Amino acid sequence: MVRDTGSLRRRYISTGPFYLDVLSLAPTDLLYLLVGTKCTYVRFNRLLKFGRMQEFFDRSDTCTNYPNLFRVSNLLLYILVIIHWNACVYFQMSNWIGFGTDDWVYFNITESVYPVNATLLRMYIYSFYWSTLTLTTIGETPKPERDIEYLFVVVDFLIGVLIFATIVGNVGSMITNMNASRAGFQQSLDGVKRYLLLRNVGKDIERRVIKWFDYVWTNKQSRDEEAILAKLPDTLSAEIAIRVHYDTLKRVSIFQDCEPGLLVQLILKLKLSVFSPGDYVCRKGDIGREMYIVKRGRLSVVGDDGRTVYANLTEGSVFGEVSILNIPGNRTGNRRTANVRSIGYSDIFVLSKDNLWAALAEYPEAKTILIERGKHLLRK
Amino acid sequence: MVRDTGSLRRRYISTGPFYLDVLSLAPTDLLYLLVGTKCTYVRFNRLLKFGRMQEFFDRSDTCTNYPNLFRVSNLLLYILVIIHWNACVYFQMSNWIGFGTDDWVYFNITESVYPVNATLLRMYIYSFYWSTLTLTTIGETPKPERDIEYLFVVVDFLIGVLIFATIVGNVGSMITNMNASRAGFQQSLDGVKRYLLLRNVGKDIERRVIKWFDYVWTNKQSRDEEAILAKLPDTLSAEIAIRVHYDTLKRVSIFQDCEPGLLVQLILKLKLSVFSPGDYVCRKGDIGREMYIVKRGRLSVVGDDGRTVYANLTEGSVFGEVSILNIPGNRTGNRRTANVRSIGYSDIFVLSKDNLWAALAEYPEAKTILIERGKHLLRK
Amino acid sequence: MVRDTGSLRRRYISTGPFYLDVLSLAPTDLLYLLVGTKCTYVRFNRLLKFGRMQEFFDRSDTCTNYPNLFRVSNLLLYILVIIHWNACVYFQMSNWIGFGTDDWVYFNITESVYPVNATLLRMYIYSFYWSTLTLTTIGETPKPERDIEYLFVVVDFLIGVLIFATIVGNVGSMITNMNASRAGFQQSLDGVKRYLLLRNVGKDIERRVIKWFDYVWTNKQSRDEEAILAKLPDTLSAEIAIRVHYDTLKRVSIFQDCEPGLLVQLILKLKLSVFSPGDYVCRKGDIGREMYIVKRGRLSVVGDDGRTVYANLTEGSVFGEVSILNIPGNRTGNRRTANVRSIGYSDIFVLSKDNLWAALAEYPEAKTILIERGKHLLRK
Amino acid sequence: MVRDTGSLRRRYISTGPFYLDVLSLAPTDLLYLLVGTKCTYVRFNRLLKFGRMQEFFDRSDTCTNYPNLFRVSNLLLYILVIIHWNACVYFQMSNWIGFGTDDWVYFNITESVYPVNATLLRMYIYSFYWSTLTLTTIGETPKPERDIEYLFVVVDFLIGVLIFATIVGNVGSMITNMNASRAGFQQSLDGVKRYLLLRNVGKDIERRVIKWFDYVWTNKQSRDEEAILAKLPDTLSAEIAIRVHYDTLKRVSIFQDCEPGLLVQLILKLKLSVFSPGDYVCRKGDIGREMYIVKRGRLSVVGDDGRTVYANLTEGSVFGEVSILNIPGNRTGNRRTANVRSIGYSDIFVLSKDNLWAALAEYPEAKTILIERGKHLLRK
Ligand SMILES: CCCCCCCCCCCCCCCCCC(=O)OC[C@H](COP(=O)(O)O)OC(=O)CCCCCCCCCCCCCCCCC
Ligand SMILES: CCCCCCCCCCCCCCCCCC(=O)OC[C@H](COP(=O)(O)O)OC(=O)CCCCCCCCCCCCCCCCC
Ligand SMILES: CCCCCCCCCCCCCCCCCC(=O)OC[C@H](COP(=O)(O)O)OC(=O)CCCCCCCCCCCCCCCCC
Ligand SMILES: CCCCCCCCCCCCCCCCCC(=O)OC[C@H](COP(=O)(O)O)OC(=O)CCCCCCCCCCCCCCCCC
Ligand SMILES: CCCCCCCCCCCCCCCCCC(=O)OC[C@H](COP(=O)(O)O)OC(=O)CCCCCCCCCCCCCCCCC
Ligand SMILES: CCCCCCCCCCCCCCCCCC(=O)OC[C@H](COP(=O)(O)O)OC(=O)CCCCCCCCCCCCCCCCC
Ligand SMILES: CCCCCCCCCCCCCCCCCC(=O)OC[C@H](COP(=O)(O)O)OC(=O)CCCCCCCCCCCCCCCCC
Ligand SMILES: CCCCCCCCCCCCCCCCCC(=O)OC[C@H](COP(=O)(O)O)OC(=O)CCCCCCCCCCCCCCCCC
Ligand code: NA
Repeated sequence: MVRDTGSLRRRYISTGPFYLDVLSLAPTDLLYLLVGTKCTYVRFNRLLKFGRMQEFFDRSDTCTNYPNLFRVSNLLLYILVIIHWNACVYFQMSNWIGFGTDDWVYFNITESVYPVNATLLRMYIYSFYWSTLTLTTIGETPKPERDIEYLFVVVDFLIGVLIFATIVGNVGSMITNMNASRAGFQQSLDGVKRYLLLRNVGKDIERRVIKWFDYVWTNKQSRDEEAILAKLPDTLSAEIAIRVHYDTLKRVSIFQDCEPGLLVQLILKLKLSVFSPGDYVCRKGDIGREMYIVKRGRLSVVGDDGRTVYANLTEGSVFGEVSILNIPGNRTGNRRTANVRSIGYSDIFVLSKDNLWAALAEYPEAKTILIERGKHLLRK
Repeated sequence: MVRDTGSLRRRYISTGPFYLDVLSLAPTDLLYLLVGTKCTYVRFNRLLKFGRMQEFFDRSDTCTNYPNLFRVSNLLLYILVIIHWNACVYFQMSNWIGFGTDDWVYFNITESVYPVNATLLRMYIYSFYWSTLTLTTIGETPKPERDIEYLFVVVDFLIGVLIFATIVGNVGSMITNMNASRAGFQQSLDGVKRYLLLRNVGKDIERRVIKWFDYVWTNKQSRDEEAILAKLPDTLSAEIAIRVHYDTLKRVSIFQDCEPGLLVQLILKLKLSVFSPGDYVCRKGDIGREMYIVKRGRLSVVGDDGRTVYANLTEGSVFGEVSILNIPGNRTGNRRTANVRSIGYSDIFVLSKDNLWAALAEYPEAKTILIERGKHLLRK
Repeated sequence: MVRDTGSLRRRYISTGPFYLDVLSLAPTDLLYLLVGTKCTYVRFNRLLKFGRMQEFFDRSDTCTNYPNLFRVSNLLLYILVIIHWNACVYFQMSNWIGFGTDDWVYFNITESVYPVNATLLRMYIYSFYWSTLTLTTIGETPKPERDIEYLFVVVDFLIGVLIFATIVGNVGSMITNMNASRAGFQQSLDGVKRYLLLRNVGKDIERRVIKWFDYVWTNKQSRDEEAILAKLPDTLSAEIAIRVHYDTLKRVSIFQDCEPGLLVQLILKLKLSVFSPGDYVCRKGDIGREMYIVKRGRLSVVGDDGRTVYANLTEGSVFGEVSILNIPGNRTGNRRTANVRSIGYSDIFVLSKDNLWAALAEYPEAKTILIERGKHLLRK
Repeated sequence: MVRDTGSLRRRYISTGPFYLDVLSLAPTDLLYLLVGTKCTYVRFNRLLKFGRMQEFFDRSDTCTNYPNLFRVSNLLLYILVIIHWNACVYFQMSNWIGFGTDDWVYFNITESVYPVNATLLRMYIYSFYWSTLTLTTIGETPKPERDIEYLFVVVDFLIGVLIFATIVGNVGSMITNMNASRAGFQQSLDGVKRYLLLRNVGKDIERRVIKWFDYVWTNKQSRDEEAILAKLPDTLSAEIAIRVHYDTLKRVSIFQDCEPGLLVQLILKLKLSVFSPGDYVCRKGDIGREMYIVKRGRLSVVGDDGRTVYANLTEGSVFGEVSILNIPGNRTGNRRTANVRSIGYSDIFVLSKDNLWAALAEYPEAKTILIERGKHLLRK
């Protein structure tokens, strides 16, 4: 971080924007002394700030917590500025042609004719109104009568058509953006519904699937965490993942003893999965391919009849690791030794065998410890 | 699943929405006793239900079988509500300014002037009409005459332009959504057509390709099943796949004996492929890389001349497994031992060698059985 | 292919659409004998053909060679039908209210008042005109005067706003579609240009890159062939690829002797690459990772000075295979033994070492032959 | 590159466009001698140049540095041409019907009635104005009175609705295009913000993430370089990458000695990563999986307390290579031997172990040299 004023100054002066900045700040107001206050064009150098304004908008956009609100306001600002400028041009043209000389221009501003038309407020409001109607291509304004008026109206309408198209395009993409997470969710849901209907799988599965989606949405269990965090560097995204899942992970004993490097490796590989009431997470005799950590919800270890409950698992419980550790002397091999069933909905972290082994390959001590613990569990 | 009323109540009261709910239900109607029934603003607390309404819309959207119809209706509701509110504002403003005092406001409501204008129906309908014309930026309404009227009209037009843009954006994305499956299909088809035309491959192939697409579409053989089901947890999607393909799979003997875990593994790896009339599924002497299960259609085992028919295969037939099982002592090695040709269009499940071997690696008994069966087949 | 009329008939009768078809064809015209020809509503059963019409549109869309032209026409048809129906409703309402009783309805049709208004042509044309202006929300029509007229106009405007939005959405996506290949190309090009500008790589590289893109576009060398053909089953896409590249491949001797299965494997793995004038395809001493087949253009085998030309390569030439075949006893190992440079632009098929070896693994005889040929080449 | 005029000429004449070109250039003006200069239709053959014009537009679009500006201008041109042609048709129709015979047609052009209407300028401007208002569906023009006028207006409005839709679609996609890089950036940013808010990770991480994004944007550190360059052939993209990173790479000694083939391999695998102030790039004892090259910024080698600074690393420094080289006899194995921390923001090239080893596998000499250098570093 460079904080030395001297080098900052030198660097700034040597860039292009510096000259624009100076020019836009030049006190051209002093020219009023020469040309009189009527000729306001001398202050047009202020428009050179435009680039800086856009830079400000870009950086604010990066920082704001309400990006779409900010962008809509931004767009509104542009619209209002363009309407305002156009209103000025209309009023100026009326001035050149002569106020009240025909229907198209602004009214006669002689106070005695119709006092209201001579007030500044009415002048501004009517010009703004005229400009709005023209640029939005509504067009309920008096017909032009002179060539120059025809020309101005045609150009204005064309600008309006394009600006309108631009706005529609922009607002459209903002809306798409605003509900991006809901839209993604709806798309998945619609696809699955369409498929179930097409293949006619029956009402009961349809209902279960819809309930599963409903739970996932209302409990904000996004399945695309990984894709989101992939935009960040590994160190940052690991830090975020640890912070987010801290409450669960602090209860998991195997994570407490292991060294930070391994912890980061493992946490980045966890996948969140949601099980519906009555779903079997694993069944006795199945080949084990994952281990599980309960993030939320309650599960039962049940007998083969599905009713005898041997144990309950709650937040922070770990299960299924024995059959993926390839423990020497384990008679059941890589097969599950128990049925585990979700009672209500459960959010469960799933860690695949491949990912666990890839991580442990570089941490032989951790591997030994884990296998020891597995052996201990088996003896129980 | 928590069903205990006490804990539910405690949980509900401790959330933010609870206070909003109470406020929105507060019997502010009682204030009429104080302020008189003219001042209807006291019931504005009912608007606080807005959040709940949106929650209701979201959850209905998840559950409905006609999501796009629901969303269009929803959008229509919003449009009508906004037009209604705007109509109220217009009528109220007319009241403040004075009915009939100029052309812009609502007409004189003295019954003797023009009785129709004094009826409630006309008042509502005209205000609604005015509001519609303004917000849709059609604008065929009397010109404003006062500053406040100009202002209101300008603001309304701008709101209209943005609302219009919003609707266009929303409806556009709904339409894209509505025909999502057709649109995806058309895109593939258009791409292939363009390519065939560009490369000038000849009319006969073009015709075959188009017929193939036509069959795939009219028989609803989507090729992206996998992508759709990938949104669901493995257990649910396997269940759906089994249900969908049940009629075919129950006829396949090798799937009947194998244990559930393996069955799920295999079913999730099946790919559906459609063959055109006369297409060879496999040719004698080719290297075998897949095995096949007939889902629909009829195929012939034919001689090298393409005419001698040795056997016919129909729904549920399995073929091609011998050359991918690496059976010891098989003289033909991994080469096909017969030509199989589709008679009409056939829908065939394809299981690749790699997927089969990956699944069998964890189920040694199943592997032994399959190879035994293969040897038996070879001896025949 | 089922051609038996009996079973086709039985199948058709047992489906839902059959009853709709019968109903839509019922000769309700006979009812005219009862109700008189004024009451044309009895023929509304013809509208039940709508489903069949859409089926026809879908299948025509699949078959046509001008899909976007067809879709735009389709859309135009819908627009015209809707305007037509709306015109009918307007005229009927005018009839109910009484022609000429106010400004909004159709004119007095008494021939003596204004003969033109009494002609059928004017009746249709004015109603169609009215309907168009209302549904497109242009709205330059006489103001309504009765409640029912206000209502109809409001409903029509709202339908118009939505239909308009629908059209915009549809036409928008058609346009995106129409130039799909150009749009994809432009996106790549714009991205590369933006990058080169941002990183300031210098004019010479920029010019070369743009020229390369220009050549690729004007010579229609699409790089996404693979993605397009992936939509089709392997057998079809291999057949297309062989047909497309037939002229080149028939000159390549190593493809002529090899068996069909291997040929298909190899052809499906070829990638087309375009080299600019002066580009080195490979340099002496480099590690070989691909072999090359010239599809179009001329190349030179040059000395290290870049000027001495040892040989020229033209369409059908194969080079670079020696260094990827791992020929035993090859002193240069897997290093290139010559410099090859493109003279003008050249289109070259590239086959990677990995793909070649994967294909050969299953065809040991072909492998032996290829290595023999390689040895022969080395001895030369 | 073919430069022989003869063969170029023969090739051109044998193509279809040649005949169109000739026809469009045929001096049909000479027909004026026969039909008189009133009948300008004879010059319509000039319209056959349309195809060539589009070819010109496509190739200019490829070459221009302001593609979106070019496309908007192009679109404007089309709009103006269509309005112009429509204006001509309107004026011609007025002529046929008779100028000034009703309100809809162009005014009476007898100079004595109203001289301005008889000027060419007014004729053109009014017709252009009429055409603009009609095609943009603004429609504030006099009502039609004859059947043919009604018909023309309806057709024009319908063309207008479709042209308008076309423009909106096109401009929309141009805008999406114009800010493509910003839009992609915003989408990532919005997704991350939404996630952090949803998961409530706390203000400090939010702030760090936003600052990281702000730095990345203002310093134009795009993370999708790879995807952009993948559109180009390998030789071109390697050349670009080398040019872009030349200033950094020329300071890296390990790149200076290695042969060009290996250099290209390595450079194509470099990934740019941005570290925030205070971030640890690596920590002592961690498993090494990448090596690093500093592109910009300053880093410190610090003690375990995080304060003792042993050394500073600046542009061109390489670190972290020891723990990924598997140097025989290295006691620390594949673990980091030092903590490296970024002082301000740093842009660092990351080269993963897998990529390095894959590249070195084919360059055994380079591998030996690198390991020797590693041993030397370890002895220090
Ligand atoms: C004098 C008259 C003044 C008239 C003022 C008119 C009333 C304007 C109503 C403004 C409606 C916007 C309310 C938004 C409240 C959002 C609160 C929030 O948290 O949002 C987060 C929410 C999501 O935020 P995110 O995190 O950024 O995605 O933001 C939004 O929903 C964006 C709002 C989009 C609204 C589109 C329609 C806008 C119509 C406004 C028309 C303006 C007319 C201009 C008149 C100029 C007169 C000179
Ligand atoms: C006869 C002549 C009549 C002239 C009438 C004047 C009207 C000027 C029309 C300008 C045309 C530009 C339309 C652009 C609309 C963009 C809306 C948008 O989507 O923005 C998002 C888009 C992206 O925004 P970002 O995401 O924040 O970067 O904005 C832009 O790209 C910049 C848009 C520039 C807006 C121009 C407004 C500047 C006001 C200063 C005008 C100076 C001209 C003075 C004329 C005086 C005449 C005497
Ligand atoms: C008083 C006068 C009342 C006038 C009413 C006007 C007539 C409105 C016609 C409504 C046309 C919609 C028919 C849809 C039938 C669909 C049946 C179905 O199964 O759809 C599944 C079908 C697909 O469903 P999915 O499974 O959800 O994808 O849904 C749709 O197709 C959505 C329909 C989109 C229609 C867009 C155009 C809407 C124009 C309506 C204009 C409304 C004017 C509002 C007037 C307010 C007056 C106060
Ligand atoms: C001078 C002042 C004039 C004021 C005129 C009042 C007009 C209010 C304008 C409100 C601007 C918001 C426009 C939003 C258009 C959204 C359309 C859409 O796409 O929705 C989908 C979009 C997504 O829907 P979802 O998928 O179901 O979540 O809807 C929204 O995001 C919420 C839209 C809010 C709609 C507001 C209507 C509420 C009525 C209560 C109005 C209370 C204000 C009272 C004013 C009294 C004045 C005295
Ligand atoms: C009575 C008056 C009748 C008036 C008729 C108005 C003139 C209409 C001009 C039609 C312009 C379309 C020409 C297209 C020629 C394309 C040839 C070709 O090969 O295209 C392949 C080309 C590409 O084909 P692909 O292989 O399908 O992608 O197709 C197209 O380019 C699609 C054409 C899109 C045109 C959009 C604009 C349409 C404006 C038409 C307005 C219609 C007004 C309706 C009036 C109703 C009156 C009752
Ligand atoms: C007061 C009541 C006034 C009623 C006015 C009647 C107007 C009917 C409005 C119908 C609303 C539906 C608008 C849909 C616009 C779709 C445009 C589009 O994008 O299509 C592509 C879209 C997709 O097409 P695809 O790709 O070919 O499948 O088309 C559709 O989804 C179907 C659209 C249906 C079009 C309806 C036209 C049918 C004519 C029969 C009308 C029967 C009603 C009779 C009324 C009698 C009244 C007494
Ligand atoms: C007689 C009256 C004449 C009136 C002229 C009206 C004034 C028109 C203002 C033109 C505004 C465009 C300024 C663009 C300056 C860009 C400089 C640059 O480097 O851009 C790179 C910049 C980015 O370039 P890239 O590298 O291609 O992406 O290009 C643009 O930003 C594209 C500009 C889009 C502007 C959209 C809005 C256009 C409204 C213009 C309305 C035209 C009315 C037609 C009237 C016809 C009359 C007969
Ligand atoms: C009653 C009859 C009234 C007839 C009125 C005449 C109006 C002709 C309407 C033509 C309809 C085509 C609209 C296409 C709008 C395209 C805008 C666009 O997006 O382009 C990008 C789009 C893509 O452009 P690219 O990226 O550069 O390839 O452009 C096109 O596809 C080509 C558009 C053709 C534009 C036609 C203008 C040609 C002028 C010559 C007219 C000859 C007809 C003479 C009539 C004489 C009558 C007596
Ligand atoms: Na309008």
